[in-house]
Amino acid sequence: MKELIRFGERFFDELEIAIYRTRGVSASIELNEISMASVKSRAITIIRGINEKRLGLAIIDSEEPERIKEAIETAAKMARLNSRDGKWDSLPEPGKYREPLKPNKELKEASPDQLVEMVIRGIKLAREKDPNAVVAGGEGGVIWEEKHIVNSRGVDVFQEGGMAYIFFELVGRKGGVVTPGIFDFDARRDLNLDVEGVVERVVRKVDWAYDVKASKNEEIPIILGPWAIAGLLSYALFPAFSGERLVKETTPLAGKVGEAVASEVLTIYDDPFHKLSIEPVIADGEGVPTRKNILIEKGTFKGFVWDNYWAKVYGTESTGNGKRDLRSGGINIGFHNVVIENGKKSFEDMIGEIKHGYFVDGFQGAHSSNPDNGNFAVTANPAYLIEDGEVVGSSVFLIAGNIYELLKQASEVSKEVTVMPFMTAVTTPFIRFEDVKIAGK
Amino acid sequence: MKELIRFGERFFDELEIAIYRTRGVSASIELNEISMASVKSRAITIIRGINEKRLGLAIIDSEEPERIKEAIETAAKMARLNSRDGKWDSLPEPGKYREPLKPNKELKEASPDQLVEMVIRGIKLAREKDPNAVVAGGEGGVIWEEKHIVNSRGVDVFQEGGMAYIFFELVGRKGGVVTPGIFDFDARRDLNLDVEGVVERVVRKVDWAYDVKASKNEEIPIILGPWAIAGLLSYALFPAFSGERLVKETTPLAGKVGEAVASEVLTIYDDPFHKLSIEPVIADGEGVPTRKNILIEKGTFKGFVWDNYWAKVYGTESTGNGKRDLRSGGINIGFHNVVIENGKKSFEDMIGEIKHGYFVDGFQGAHSSNPDNGNFAVTANPAYLIEDGEVVGSSVFLIAGNIYELLKQASEVSKEVTVMPFMTAVTTPFIRFEDVKIAGK
Repeated sequence: MKELIRFGERFFDELEIAIYRTRGVSASIELNEISMASVKSRAITIIRGINEKRLGLAIIDSEEPERIKEAIETAAKMARLNSRDGKWDSLPEPGKYREPLKPNKELKEASPDQLVEMVIRGIKLAREKDPNAVVAGGEGGVIWEEKHIVNSRGVDVFQEGGMAYIFFELVGRKGGVVTPGIFDFDARRDLNLDVEGVVERVVRKVDWAYDVKASKNEEIPIILGPWAIAGLLSYALFPAFSGERLVKETTPLAGKVGEAVASEVLTIYDDPFHKLSIEPVIADGEGVPTRKNILIEKGTFKGFVWDNYWAKVYGTESTGNGKRDLRSGGINIGFHNVVIENGKKSFEDMIGEIKHGYFVDGFQGAHSSNPDNGNFAVTANPAYLIEDGEVVGSSVFLIAGNIYELLKQASEVSKEVTVMPFMTAVTTPFIRFEDVKIAGK
Repeated sequence: MKELIRFGERFFDELEIAIYRTRGVSASIELNEISMASVKSRAITIIRGINEKRLGLAIIDSEEPERIKEAIETAAKMARLNSRDGKWDSLPEPGKYREPLKPNKELKEASPDQLVEMVIRGIKLAREKDPNAVVAGGEGGVIWEEKHIVNSRGVDVFQEGGMAYIFFELVGRKGGVVTPGIFDFDARRDLNLDVEGVVERVVRKVDWAYDVKASKNEEIPIILGPWAIAGLLSYALFPAFSGERLVKETTPLAGKVGEAVASEVLTIYDDPFHKLSIEPVIADGEGVPTRKNILIEKGTFKGFVWDNYWAKVYGTESTGNGKRDLRSGGINIGFHNVVIENGKKSFEDMIGEIKHGYFVDGFQGAHSSNPDNGNFAVTANPAYLIEDGEVVGSSVFLIAGNIYELLKQASEVSKEVTVMPFMTAVTTPFIRFEDVKIAGK
């Protein structure tokens, strides 16, 4: 790699070479059957070179030195044709990295047969527990990743690791009722996925969904589940923590460091080294050391997160939140493992304490939330009606609101946490919110 | 390959091995600059094996015989665990194939530098022609594909070929007006992409868009452009031609063969061998010979299209419309190159003949159309107001309707055609429709 950096310095003031090797193994479900088993591996090299503040960026799916040299030349040609970016400062310097976690090598060698067996076990179990349910979809998979990031300022970080995930989607049919697709998930850094737990949870929710109840306009307590929370916050809240948005004046959190933006029961941080993290990276996508970044502590907003470019534009330091987009090759500000701190009360007890309210498992339409102001309008589906401390059926309703108002209505977080492996990885408890206005549908 | 088929026959009654090699080269634009140049190649092998009507399907990204054998074993294991599909009949037999077109080998070796230069040329030209416009996005690319499909019934087809595409997205800013993103496209089987033509068309549309006009509820003639047509028909109409939907009773075209479903000016067929086709395949994804399938001839519905599985379920023959989904490995009914037949009148003359109406360039929301009944509700944006035969500004409005009613309102097709390379490849003229109800916004 050193030699390739030297080669690149003929063309660039500074450059970065990032190599990503990934191996993904998966088994997918369609209508009670395994529809596909797959093994895919690839190596991608991304060259980012800067010459007189002109950027060149090339991507190839190879790690052969000759091909990397060609890619450097392509990036150099591109940089010559591009205009100067006056805001460019420099690539990151090396930092002080934590000791990496010992990677679990069984994930590196995972076979599709292991996943096929695990998924079949889940399908059988689900159909035994509920003969009226169809396992409409789902997937078990293992992803192994090796990342090597080197730049001409001395950064040279290699990391490797893996994660496994599983999810099932059930649709129940009973007495004329067809439930919506109902999901549950597990994700972790070893192969001991909790298939039984996932199936138990999803079957219980399907059972609740057979009894369809009308919803009406009212203000009631609701408990949001992990899937609903991850979906809503990923679109309505998390982008607002981006330093790029602070610079571009598109975050409602500007000027609010130290202010209460949520209820005191909420503490949210990004921590790749959290014990349940599925991405325990010691360095981000451009080689900056990662750390625990507190976003909200007991309701108080603690600060923004940054990548190298926007931190230098703003005159601060990268918080290690430069995430590499392997499609575009670029670096975007993002999170490694968002954790919403859990509490002491069980989910059961939280339901038991609600006289009249809902447990919302999923939201539709969260992607059209507006992170510039936190406004959202979503359909709660599936949502489960709670009466006198028990779930008595399922319903659908609308919530239109503002995420910062909602966060202030939070009153309790559960003991149980779920790791949501998609989009932004989020580890979250169930959260209860008071006096939420819903519109019946 | 023969040996691998023999190996697979130890486990399966019949099996198919499909190898796809692809090489993609591209250069992308972001805000007047080249944001990325990329070269990606891969080989994917898909095994589909059937044993006692139980399906096994495995995907690997390799064409090494040893890895293919492993994948066959994984597929075999999966087939054992799956249930019988009583509807399964058999894999296709070999058919009579047309002579393949001579592939253009310059596309096989296309370099990212060629695309970088082409794209830079487009950016410069666009900014010269309109200094108020920003080239917000765009991409130039070349895709080369080699496909080898072999099965245990004797199918053994190899095909190779490539296509090149380019598109630019401009946003104009002038006197407080910010236009929406405005696009234009070209796609063909050689590298002589019409960069100048694309830029000229998109700049002209941006110029029209600077003058914003209110829209109101009315019934007027509209001309739909290629992007609007491809988007709307891909979601609202094309799925209805699928034989699978005929079997599942989810197409409004059931029982309508021979009936008028559109205006006489419309003739629509799927023809991979059309002179502008960017995918001139002689066989479909499961090795069935392709052919020209007429869907609508002078307004009359001519028939459904089929893949091997659903054709045999229904008791008919595959029309060569089995398309391989490289992600799931499965075969879906789809099109190779939909052609809407063009006419004799120029687009200019078509505009010149409208006293009061609109030219609609793009639709938003087409993806939520319902192919079960043809209903759609879309936002026309950008839409250009035509007064006394001239475009006088741009507007936004809603159209909610039914695709079959709309198709009957077609009154003229242009001489000019555009090849739309995304999703379903569509070669289409501009089309005029009479008395279209619009809702002002």
